[in-house]
Amino acid sequence: MKPLRASDCWVALVHHPVYDKHKRVVATALTNLDLHDIARSTRSYGCAGFLIVHPVAAQRELAQRIANHWLAEGAEKNDFRRQAIERIAVVPDLETARVHVTAAAGRAPHVVATAARNAPGTLGYHRLQQDGPLLLVLGTGWGLTDELIASCDARLAPLQAASDYNHLSVRSACAIILDRLYGDHPNYATS
Amino acid sequence: MKPLRASDCWVALVHHPVYDKHKRVVATALTNLDLHDIARSTRSYGCAGFLIVHPVAAQRELAQRIANHWLAEGAEKNDFRRQAIERIAVVPDLETARVHVTAAAGRAPHVVATAARNAPGTLGYHRLQQDGPLLLVLGTGWGLTDELIASCDARLAPLQAASDYNHLSVRSACAIILDRLYGDHPNYATS
Repeated sequence: MKPLRASDCWVALVHHPVYDKHKRVVATALTNLDLHDIARSTRSYGCAGFLIVHPVAAQRELAQRIANHWLAEGAEKNDFRRQAIERIAVVPDLETARVHVTAAAGRAPHVVATAARNAPGTLGYHRLQQDGPLLLVLGTGWGLTDELIASCDARLAPLQAASDYNHLSVRSACAIILDRLYGDHPNYATS
Repeated sequence: MKPLRASDCWVALVHHPVYDKHKRVVATALTNLDLHDIARSTRSYGCAGFLIVHPVAAQRELAQRIANHWLAEGAEKNDFRRQAIERIAVVPDLETARVHVTAAAGRAPHVVATAARNAPGTLGYHRLQQDGPLLLVLGTGWGLTDELIASCDARLAPLQAASDYNHLSVRSACAIILDRLYGDHPNYATS
């Protein structure tokens, strides 16, 4: 088994198709702190990139405008923020994210969904292997739709599946997932 | 060594004394998503409580007002949010946080600071023991002051100390720290 390599990992944050709390399929609004926090987490763990997936052009333009701010005048105030933001790309759908990673990595990624809901056939963190590029897919709102998850190559087990409360923010979940996979503790994912 | 127990753990989020980016000692403004994300993380991992530490009365009142909203009319819209928020307490300083935990736990807590800066004598996650209540202290802004850290009983090692980039949001850092200590993976903190 190859060791997991953050430098071959991309994170996609999907705003559609996801559920709302009534399990309707919706597109959620861009959240500024999702962009910042996940950019900082992916940069801290050495990931290759962070893809913001939104079907609405105006929301993609907003995401790009926020990113551009921190790449230009904002960089003078806070260069650490620039370093995180510069790995962001904004795309309309997961298929485009996949194409983006394939072009950057020279090879199609293994696409792995994440979800807070339990389901048969989820992959424990210790069982995830990475023999090439990895695209980790996270959902906003009340999570990725079952159809989108089914279109991925694998699905990670929920964090804290045994807890009576399983409602982490997507920002927190992303940070934990990256730490479990690539953290500087004994890497139990490959042990 | 006793196993780590989330039900004996409190998290304190300190807004003063912390550094700004010029290493001046400041009080930072309350961030709404710190309150929500850290409440959700502490609840997901089964912690006993989340203490918001702010020296400014108007900021404490704001924190309490946000919390009260989700305990009252907001609870009808989102009961999961209520369950996270109900473990919040708002206090003016770390000493009061310590007194709060002592009263709740019946015993003074072991107070453990966290920081992104490396330093001699930091405690690796695998070395943290918990034989009674634990108060984990996180700083906003550019981190807890050296004096506040020195007043704690111990200091955890930085997350991703070997990374060339160490600028996680405090929301992300809190989530990762709780997962390292209390996550449902093989608990390497006690192995």
